[in-house]
Amino acid sequence: MKSDVILLGHGSGGKLSHQLLDELIVPILSGIGQHDQNDAAILASPNGRLAFTTDSYVVDPIFFPGGNIGDLAIHGTVNDLAMAGATPIAISVGLIIEEGLPIADLKLVLETMRDAAVQAQVRIVTGDTKVVPHGKADKLFINTSGIGAIKHDLEISGSNAQVGDKILINGNIGDHGMAVLASREGLELESAIRTDSAPLNGMVETLVSELGSQLHTLRDPTRGGVATTLKEIALQSEVEITLEETALPIDPAVGGACGILGLDPLFVANEGKLLAFVAADAADRALAIMQCHPYGTAAAVIGEVTATAAGKVRLHTAIGGLRAIEMLAGEQLPRIC
Amino acid sequence: MKSDVILLGHGSGGKLSHQLLDELIVPILSGIGQHDQNDAAILASPNGRLAFTTDSYVVDPIFFPGGNIGDLAIHGTVNDLAMAGATPIAISVGLIIEEGLPIADLKLVLETMRDAAVQAQVRIVTGDTKVVPHGKADKLFINTSGIGAIKHDLEISGSNAQVGDKILINGNIGDHGMAVLASREGLELESAIRTDSAPLNGMVETLVSELGSQLHTLRDPTRGGVATTLKEIALQSEVEITLEETALPIDPAVGGACGILGLDPLFVANEGKLLAFVAADAADRALAIMQCHPYGTAAAVIGEVTATAAGKVRLHTAIGGLRAIEMLAGEQLPRIC
Repeated sequence: MKSDVILLGHGSGGKLSHQLLDELIVPILSGIGQHDQNDAAILASPNGRLAFTTDSYVVDPIFFPGGNIGDLAIHGTVNDLAMAGATPIAISVGLIIEEGLPIADLKLVLETMRDAAVQAQVRIVTGDTKVVPHGKADKLFINTSGIGAIKHDLEISGSNAQVGDKILINGNIGDHGMAVLASREGLELESAIRTDSAPLNGMVETLVSELGSQLHTLRDPTRGGVATTLKEIALQSEVEITLEETALPIDPAVGGACGILGLDPLFVANEGKLLAFVAADAADRALAIMQCHPYGTAAAVIGEVTATAAGKVRLHTAIGGLRAIEMLAGEQLPRIC
Repeated sequence: MKSDVILLGHGSGGKLSHQLLDELIVPILSGIGQHDQNDAAILASPNGRLAFTTDSYVVDPIFFPGGNIGDLAIHGTVNDLAMAGATPIAISVGLIIEEGLPIADLKLVLETMRDAAVQAQVRIVTGDTKVVPHGKADKLFINTSGIGAIKHDLEISGSNAQVGDKILINGNIGDHGMAVLASREGLELESAIRTDSAPLNGMVETLVSELGSQLHTLRDPTRGGVATTLKEIALQSEVEITLEETALPIDPAVGGACGILGLDPLFVANEGKLLAFVAADAADRALAIMQCHPYGTAAAVIGEVTATAAGKVRLHTAIGGLRAIEMLAGEQLPRIC
């Protein structure tokens, strides 16, 4: 690359755009993608059903402990597909770059995306790059959309939670939100908090194949945290959920930082966590599957579906009280993903 | 909606996000989409092959004569699928909104997206909304990704142009770029120039079914214009392309504005145009199909593939000369799409 930073011309569609593609983007991503430079990628259509999802990432800062906007974007879309019980097969990458972004930063983000895609066994097959003038965006925004193949007949859905279901999470809550916040605000913490950003499709494939129809609902508690996500599921399934505060796995550093800042970790974003609703009979098996997986060593049963009721979530507190949980009001932590 | 403008909290994933979805986005887009509020949409997998594409839109201004960022985003992704010979079946919408955007502007954009999707007979099936603080984006950026079904065995590709092929375009060139530029710069023109933004999937379906294997290449000349797109195809197919300047259809108002500004309409973006490379035998039929279509009344044969040669494009000028055409260098018209 002749320039050290992104220029407006890199988004022109002309010579500089092709140079950016040919000298940076394609060499980094081509190991896992097809790049015949047509407007659309061509894929074999899988049997059965497709899952289709999209997410834009605007996290600030773009680099934070344990990850960056690039692997976050791959993990997020892989996980959205996995939560539908789908096997990710193809991802698109749409970059919106602020003029002046160091090429070295873009290179690092792209390399991280490549590595994340390889790890999740999904191909980056098509993309788009836009450049906007300095001051009209903030460094880098990334959209990832994804297609997954649903290879079974199960209905894994937010509206399929059933009375009696046990609710599991695959580990500590609030890590991602606190990692980004601490990084953005320059908080001096005793031990660095790292994002939990990770691809969960491998764990989900095992849960699907081992639990079958005993697996009712999967969702990743990202923006709004575990509380908001459970409230959504309670509303969709028209049930009452009861959580046990003492069962919630929380890293002491995250718990401490939340305490100092007056944040409730139940409302802080996660990027490598899933909530699974499973029939009570299958809870032990589900917990064992999670705990055997590298991204589930701290998995726990955190609650259950206690009644049919229009969208109630309540928390048995450590001191024996009952607290009603609502969705996150306002914006606790902007630009966390 | 309680607020007249977008607040940061509308991107929180919490209560305000759900309010924005429930009161604005879903009511407008739900007529054509499925909105069960899961992380991914579920679709039946079509037979054969899939096309998958993505584009982000950062056009400035977001409203311009003849369209806005919303229908532009739908048309662009519909057309990218059509250029692969695919029938669009599903579109995702990723919104990145600057805090403070008037809700009325967002509503108008969403309504236009709905109408454009209805017209193109494609469903908007999934979406995502992010909000960034004032000054960290420019009003509204939209990513649309799309899935199409390829219902035939043809290889319609930028690498399939063949010596002897006639090159057709479905109408006047440069309208979109000049409409946006005139609008952005407040140019006072005698007659308003309108974008040509339009869905071309209907026209392409007819071309595919009528021409079959005589249809070799389709591409929409967006950023970089007709010149850059033809140069790309010449490089991919390793051929020489010869254009006839006198055959290029140009609206006099666009030609005049380009002349005043020192712009070459061959390099100005289009959003409702396609370039078709067809076997010479099929050129008359292709031209007739285009001219019968509402988006092809000014269609013309503008050149042909004249030799095997590594990526040359040349223009027979009106005064009898031969001019070499290269890709757009630098950024002629930033943020045109």
